[in-house]
Amino acid sequence: MTRPRFSFSIAATDGKARTGTIAMRRGDIRTPAFMPVGTAATVKAMRPAEVRAAGADIILGNTYHLMLRPGAERVARLGGLHGFMGWDRPILTDSGGYQVMSLSALTKMSEDGVAFASHIDGSKHMLTPERSMEIQRLLGSDIVMAFDECTRNGVTHDEAARSMERSMRWAKRSRDAFDAGVDHAAGAALFGIQQGSLDEGLRKASGQALVEIGFDGYAVGGLAVGEGQEAMFACLDYAPGQLPEDRPRYLMGVGKPDDIVGAVERGIDMFDCVLPTRSGRNGQAFTWTGPLNIRNARFAEDMGPLDPECGCPVCTGWSRAYLHHLVKAKEILGAMLMTQHNIHFYQSLMQHLRDAIAEKRLSAFAQAFRTRYGKGRQAD
Amino acid sequence: MTRPRFSFSIAATDGKARTGTIAMRRGDIRTPAFMPVGTAATVKAMRPAEVRAAGADIILGNTYHLMLRPGAERVARLGGLHGFMGWDRPILTDSGGYQVMSLSALTKMSEDGVAFASHIDGSKHMLTPERSMEIQRLLGSDIVMAFDECTRNGVTHDEAARSMERSMRWAKRSRDAFDAGVDHAAGAALFGIQQGSLDEGLRKASGQALVEIGFDGYAVGGLAVGEGQEAMFACLDYAPGQLPEDRPRYLMGVGKPDDIVGAVERGIDMFDCVLPTRSGRNGQAFTWTGPLNIRNARFAEDMGPLDPECGCPVCTGWSRAYLHHLVKAKEILGAMLMTQHNIHFYQSLMQHLRDAIAEKRLSAFAQAFRTRYGKGRQAD
Repeated sequence: MTRPRFSFSIAATDGKARTGTIAMRRGDIRTPAFMPVGTAATVKAMRPAEVRAAGADIILGNTYHLMLRPGAERVARLGGLHGFMGWDRPILTDSGGYQVMSLSALTKMSEDGVAFASHIDGSKHMLTPERSMEIQRLLGSDIVMAFDECTRNGVTHDEAARSMERSMRWAKRSRDAFDAGVDHAAGAALFGIQQGSLDEGLRKASGQALVEIGFDGYAVGGLAVGEGQEAMFACLDYAPGQLPEDRPRYLMGVGKPDDIVGAVERGIDMFDCVLPTRSGRNGQAFTWTGPLNIRNARFAEDMGPLDPECGCPVCTGWSRAYLHHLVKAKEILGAMLMTQHNIHFYQSLMQHLRDAIAEKRLSAFAQAFRTRYGKGRQAD
Repeated sequence: MTRPRFSFSIAATDGKARTGTIAMRRGDIRTPAFMPVGTAATVKAMRPAEVRAAGADIILGNTYHLMLRPGAERVARLGGLHGFMGWDRPILTDSGGYQVMSLSALTKMSEDGVAFASHIDGSKHMLTPERSMEIQRLLGSDIVMAFDECTRNGVTHDEAARSMERSMRWAKRSRDAFDAGVDHAAGAALFGIQQGSLDEGLRKASGQALVEIGFDGYAVGGLAVGEGQEAMFACLDYAPGQLPEDRPRYLMGVGKPDDIVGAVERGIDMFDCVLPTRSGRNGQAFTWTGPLNIRNARFAEDMGPLDPECGCPVCTGWSRAYLHHLVKAKEILGAMLMTQHNIHFYQSLMQHLRDAIAEKRLSAFAQAFRTRYGKGRQAD
């Protein structure tokens, strides 16, 4: 049986929340989904099999990082990102637009795109909608993101409008360039990205512009850029509803566990964030009673697991005392185990959310989660 | 069936080489054996299950590192080193004598022992034969090493003699202190350490002194300290023969693959070395055609495995090009995979040596190994 290029089916809804499945050539993606971030062709400190065992159906790769090292053409010569890194399920790649602005030096924006110097070796590069589509095609991405400008937090209405309008022109160029890569487009999907800062009217105009172009899925971009959870949720009270109900909605770069729960309640289906991996390397563990920092001296002789409610290989195999020791001693195994637990925690949270939606008890689950998680967070 | 405290049976010999089994409470150790080094309660960048899957029957823990962090008393309160790190098979601990001299600051040697300051936080400590035995007991070590002074390379005959004689007095104090820890001694083994630098007469006297005290096994100490392979092999031409034939002989801190092959031919049964783990983190891979440095640009688009003759999960899962990328990008997964391959390579080498001895073809195996491995080494 041939698997579909891209098909999204919603199995159940609960309020604005939905649970379902995205079916693609390389596998199914259960939604709401959390995508671990595999920046440089690796989910940091994890083997692909460990990422999969944690429950991930899809991972994210970064166009900006991969175009600089090892290079998109090189990845293509080596057979594509999947074979290169040993992950045979779907990969979503971002467009490079966000990171070129946050990481590179000497950027110069124009209507054509962004010229910049590599943060690794200073080499000069140019990202345009067309080049971004080409890179994502060379990588062999399953879900390609349109090239956009991530509008900064705190800009004026006029700046937000001009930025959004440029992103919409780039969305059209992305669509055209993606479709021109016929062989790749036959097996991959393209997502558009809604911008418009925190302005409901601009968000609506952006959503309409994207729908007019037509995409397989739609991302809410430009959030989690410093506006705070309250402002983000206020925007999510209307933004997902401005995007087609029968298409997956992806909230880029989000987020903390309580961000995810609130966004799922508001109709978001997909997430990515470096938090579980980056925090893990820094000694922070996510638990059902809030985050904890394993470096804290109170864990030095704590023989309990990181999270007593977690069944992951880390929580069943080692104590907080051991993880405290590893992280304090800067042992690589500390980063490995903390990351593994955190990815398990995030995937477990998504499974709980999917189950709660399917059983129409999301509100009760979310309320109970916030109460316990928030209390733990304050106590830490 | 109760497992023995310590029993060494030689299944076959080939020239001076032997293959057999050490049976202990926590498991069998196939000899010749290579013990991966788990310095700070972790074989760096590997989970215990991965170390075991590579073929290791026993690992080594470092008394010096563990006494400073997390501390021997703390490990004891947490139930011992095995449970702490999740390795349920035998652990050999060194005595701390070597590393206190090479790593710590402000050391002061006396007949009693060594006073020193921690390289981590400057705290003051004292290691004596009695304290070393106590620490190894607190850790729950299966094979305890006598506390000795590792004689430096290049000393005069008189210095070597005085150092060796002190080590022999410390060996007796170690034996007495080990035996006084009755509960631990009932399940663990104690090894003595031969010193005497590169002097055959001193080595002989040291061996006799140790045998007079009586140990479960005997280490050849004070080699691989800068004397070079030729001088080391010259010493190994007589040193193992000065130790009891019916007891395991352990060459401490060795070594490169060709060192191990030559030492096995000279009657050594056990080895430990940081080389496979440390080299792995630095981008060096061991292969049957010699070591290679994966950072080399010629591997950037090499789709072959690290070692075409290796069946380890790394060689069957990823290309040289991918490992090159990971190591260049300083990704943790690079250290994980390079280390995993190297530990597999070392364990595979030991299995080949055991098989060759059992089939009385060690000389041919060793000659073929040296030819291929040495050629590759020169080419790199």
